Amino acid sequence: MDDVNALIHDRMTSENAPRIPEITAHLIDAGGKRIRPMMTLAAARMFGYEGDGHVKLAATVEFIHTATLLHDDVVDESSKRRGRPTANLLWDNKSSVLVGDYLFARAFQLMVEPGNLRALTILSNAAALIAEGEVLQLTAAQNLATDEDTYMKVVRGKTAALFSAATQVGPVLVGATEAQVQAMFDFGDALGVCFQIVDDYLDYGGAGDAIGKNLGDDFRERKLTLPVIRAIAAADATERTFWDRTIARGEQRDGDLEQAMSLLARHGTMESTRQTALDWAARAKTALNAAPDHPLSGMLADLADFVVERVN
Amino acid sequence: MDDVNALIHDRMTSENAPRIPEITAHLIDAGGKRIRPMMTLAAARMFGYEGDGHVKLAATVEFIHTATLLHDDVVDESSKRRGRPTANLLWDNKSSVLVGDYLFARAFQLMVEPGNLRALTILSNAAALIAEGEVLQLTAAQNLATDEDTYMKVVRGKTAALFSAATQVGPVLVGATEAQVQAMFDFGDALGVCFQIVDDYLDYGGAGDAIGKNLGDDFRERKLTLPVIRAIAAADATERTFWDRTIARGEQRDGDLEQAMSLLARHGTMESTRQTALDWAARAKTALNAAPDHPLSGMLADLADFVVERVN
Repeated sequence: MDDVNALIHDRMTSENAPRIPEITAHLIDAGGKRIRPMMTLAAARMFGYEGDGHVKLAATVEFIHTATLLHDDVVDESSKRRGRPTANLLWDNKSSVLVGDYLFARAFQLMVEPGNLRALTILSNAAALIAEGEVLQLTAAQNLATDEDTYMKVVRGKTAALFSAATQVGPVLVGATEAQVQAMFDFGDALGVCFQIVDDYLDYGGAGDAIGKNLGDDFRERKLTLPVIRAIAAADATERTFWDRTIARGEQRDGDLEQAMSLLARHGTMESTRQTALDWAARAKTALNAAPDHPLSGMLADLADFVVERVN
Repeated sequence: MDDVNALIHDRMTSENAPRIPEITAHLIDAGGKRIRPMMTLAAARMFGYEGDGHVKLAATVEFIHTATLLHDDVVDESSKRRGRPTANLLWDNKSSVLVGDYLFARAFQLMVEPGNLRALTILSNAAALIAEGEVLQLTAAQNLATDEDTYMKVVRGKTAALFSAATQVGPVLVGATEAQVQAMFDFGDALGVCFQIVDDYLDYGGAGDAIGKNLGDDFRERKLTLPVIRAIAAADATERTFWDRTIARGEQRDGDLEQAMSLLARHGTMESTRQTALDWAARAKTALNAAPDHPLSGMLADLADFVVERVN
């Protein structure tokens, strides 16, 4: 990870445009858990990869992630990320859009360097799926008819696609069997789905400090996440009127977030969402059974536990 | 070009997010001159390339271009593009940002397909230079101290980088000599610089219908383009006060654009900008002397004439 962090710092700069390192440093130095690049490194080493291409692909994955954060915060009009004011707030939306584009391009430069065409295909496919998932989320927001199928499509795009790409490129670098590549895809996919469900759960239940952003952001942005989709499916007429006013029409008043949270509690959808997250973590660990018996496989299993720890 | 257009239409869709084809169709079907992909096709065929990888790289180049247009219109808050209302006006900024990201990702998927690592390096470098140029433009706007050196850095990034990548990948596909690759870089670079200078000229002098966008957009966005940079360098104290109010402080009133245009005329900077554009077109044509003697070389020379025709 030291090599990955050094590479990230080396490539996030720009000779010609000083605004770029200002913004990238603001976001990248804020920390972040670096879960995705860690997965790439582990997935490469556990298959016996000996080169340094995995460091470049790990940095690629983190750059794609960081670029999407910059653009997400513009789209969501967010004010807080990783416990700090967002770049769109400190600078402006324009800078966030363009510096995000720069990081995307830097990601593509990096991913070309190891010269593995299959890894390139996997990572560029992931980038397309992410954008597709974000657009789908945009059109599904405010729409009370959004169901769990659509939610899963959004989650698989915006989050799981990069997790599964991060773990797949490891075995691909060493030319592992298709079954092994598939196992690592399954692990990354399940962990990504789990990660997003946990995130969506915490938005209605975590303390602001624990999640590094504001509680209730999804409610204010009128996003249809799992706890809400399930509560709407179970809503009586009065509750439906509440969701119609707050989510579909966006007329939100003081106390509405608290009311929403009490409806989620009444229908047990926080608990069922938590259970769904735990199921996905278990699926991720099961996928590892088809991977090599290696200490790093145990580390990836621990990572799945770490991701659900916040709801457990 | 029929193959390129068919490929563009095939790849601009999305199964999961219907908003994507709506927006891409709005922009791509509006036409556009398709100058960049045409350059890629010509530059490949004139070096004797026989495969179909150049079609994919040509579509790549057009997708990168289209993605930057979507983001540029958000950043510039533009209302008109190719004679139509912009996507950010018809839908919203969020959709333009995310669909632009999708097109970037689709571009990278496409460029991987021919499997040529050097072409991948050239195109991903171009994507990074474009974003860098756009960020530099953002920070140079409103700044009366912006000089011609900074202007050229912006132009080389935001416009010439993609032109030169478009022409370089052709000879790269057939493994041409370094001198030949350099010649095609020089051609694309000079033509890109020429193209942008013409664009910046027309913003103060072309009819709105001829340029497909609004006259005076650059002035309203307080961009320091060549005619203005030269007029500011020649400004007396009164004129400097005018530029300071309109560009640096952004206090613009009715009649200011006309006043700006009369100052450009007074100092002959429209004429000198026009001359600079013609010089770059001539440089582009000279670069072709080092390329193969082929009918398509003549077509590229004609393209240079076509680009400056609007100021000639």
